[in-house]
Amino acid sequence: MKKNNEIKTPTKLADLGEFGVIDKITKGFINSNNSSVLGIGDDAAVLDFKDNQALISTDMMVEGVHFDLAYMPLKHLGYKAVVSNLSDIYSMNGTCTQITVSIAVSNRFNLESLEELYLGIRAACKTYKIDLVGGDTTTSTKGLIISITSIGSAKSKDIVKRSGAQINDLIVVSGDLGSAYMGLQVLERENEVFKVNPQNQPDLSDYAYLLKRQLKPEARKDVIDFFADKKITPTSMIDISDGLSSEVLHICKQSNVGCDLYEEKIPLSKEMKSGCEEFKLHSTTIALSGGEDYELLFTINQKDYDKIKGNNDLTVIGHIIDSEKGINLVTKSEDKVPITSQGWKSF
Amino acid sequence: MKKNNEIKTPTKLADLGEFGVIDKITKGFINSNNSSVLGIGDDAAVLDFKDNQALISTDMMVEGVHFDLAYMPLKHLGYKAVVSNLSDIYSMNGTCTQITVSIAVSNRFNLESLEELYLGIRAACKTYKIDLVGGDTTTSTKGLIISITSIGSAKSKDIVKRSGAQINDLIVVSGDLGSAYMGLQVLERENEVFKVNPQNQPDLSDYAYLLKRQLKPEARKDVIDFFADKKITPTSMIDISDGLSSEVLHICKQSNVGCDLYEEKIPLSKEMKSGCEEFKLHSTTIALSGGEDYELLFTINQKDYDKIKGNNDLTVIGHIIDSEKGINLVTKSEDKVPITSQGWKSF
Repeated sequence: MKKNNEIKTPTKLADLGEFGVIDKITKGFINSNNSSVLGIGDDAAVLDFKDNQALISTDMMVEGVHFDLAYMPLKHLGYKAVVSNLSDIYSMNGTCTQITVSIAVSNRFNLESLEELYLGIRAACKTYKIDLVGGDTTTSTKGLIISITSIGSAKSKDIVKRSGAQINDLIVVSGDLGSAYMGLQVLERENEVFKVNPQNQPDLSDYAYLLKRQLKPEARKDVIDFFADKKITPTSMIDISDGLSSEVLHICKQSNVGCDLYEEKIPLSKEMKSGCEEFKLHSTTIALSGGEDYELLFTINQKDYDKIKGNNDLTVIGHIIDSEKGINLVTKSEDKVPITSQGWKSF
Repeated sequence: MKKNNEIKTPTKLADLGEFGVIDKITKGFINSNNSSVLGIGDDAAVLDFKDNQALISTDMMVEGVHFDLAYMPLKHLGYKAVVSNLSDIYSMNGTCTQITVSIAVSNRFNLESLEELYLGIRAACKTYKIDLVGGDTTTSTKGLIISITSIGSAKSKDIVKRSGAQINDLIVVSGDLGSAYMGLQVLERENEVFKVNPQNQPDLSDYAYLLKRQLKPEARKDVIDFFADKKITPTSMIDISDGLSSEVLHICKQSNVGCDLYEEKIPLSKEMKSGCEEFKLHSTTIALSGGEDYELLFTINQKDYDKIKGNNDLTVIGHIIDSEKGINLVTKSEDKVPITSQGWKSF
């Protein structure tokens, strides 16, 4: 017979009350940035960026729309929610220092599940040296909703917008593309198998890289640090959350330029390529439309090429041309195809 | 026969796509603060607070938990959502200059309903001279969720925390308390009547003040301006979103002091008092626990009393005492009753 004290009863959020829940989940967060003057516990956080400019970005994630808890563990979800937000600050060539996290949860969540979520948030804060300085914790009528605002800073002269790309600039991307999307395909397939046969124990070791890209993506702080080290200021930059085509369109339209982007140059992982073969998907299409890779897409003046050519994690995939010449993909068969995209359609 | 062009078909959000929706709803927002260096349209907004410190606060509102669209028009909801956030920045004695707005909407919302919501958001931005500098627009599986982050700034020496109240300080409140809660009682009653008899046309003119307090509250920027004008720096401050008792507990606990708060001094509107009689509610209880008034509760050194005594909109309701003497309400019958509250229980 099992003893009673071996079973941990989940703690109902209602039993703790709002302030009790906040106390529990924010325990263990320690501020590490000098710019965090006052954190959680007052009406507003106080931040001091001295002579830097502040950078602010915000995102909302909704259960059943942006994530499925059937294959996204809460801890990974917390990590990914933070990382996807930080990525927006890095893509301005800024340093990210603070976040606020607001969540709404239905009554199927208990304290232990929220603690799992915040373990992931805390892990991301630790990895990227971010302070949690505020938020809101409330009830939803259905599912989990997470809204994160990330805050950073940069010197005015270092901030890189989407709108600065110039004709003849090189188009560069970090890492590889499409793997996060392929990770999602694997998870969705396993979830369908699980529904039919819950006893099935899948061996996902062949897909480890793809799953990591989907479940525990990283933001490219290292690339921003590389820029600082090499004294490179990209002329324009954006992070790849919606897929390469959507992002290159943003840069070209906001910079009022065109581009030639070479299909054969797009960096793909070997796992992503074999996944595409297995799932009978076209790898270029996935790289163009897949999203959630959180790599950086940027343009640099050609004079900076020597500074990046030794970095194996950065790939030149094209160059900026006059806007009248279009926004093109140059295919492996050397055809020019206009790049079109409506971005990620959340509606 | 009605002509076809007289009927305006609601516009489905899915037909516009994410970027189309964002373009439509952010049209007409014009930045008016010098600190807004870069607004909507890049990965992050760029703000410049010069030698001021930045203030950040965030809130999430969920349909069916924080508001009911049966009696809260979308335009009012947008206005109130902004105002309740700004109030947090003013309660730090700061100037509020920017907001980000993230929304998740289910498919029962169309473009026209979102435009109504953003009309209210824009009206609040205009009234308080706030720039909308970012946000996120996405789908929910149920209802409307609004998450707003408000951003402001202040000189370090002017920032007022919850934790600075000192023994013998006066406790002061702006405006009157409990009217917003009574407005909600009226709306809920009318909604029940409407369910039984939809033909009933209620005359709510007697409740105009209460309804205004519930549906279109204002943040007390004017009080912050008054402080600047009179060179007053409160020793502690908080806005009254959850009810007087919850807020006075926050100030006393975070300042490590006690207080005597006088029941007979608590400012109540005549409409609120007659509403309490009609609904058979105890007016002091409503003032203590009602919430959503967005008045400011603050403490000042006694030497500043002369500066506030001519302001009819500020009422001294008590004073700070040693923490060992407790956090008390002194009733009209001169009994001392400990003030307890769990704040507004959202779970």
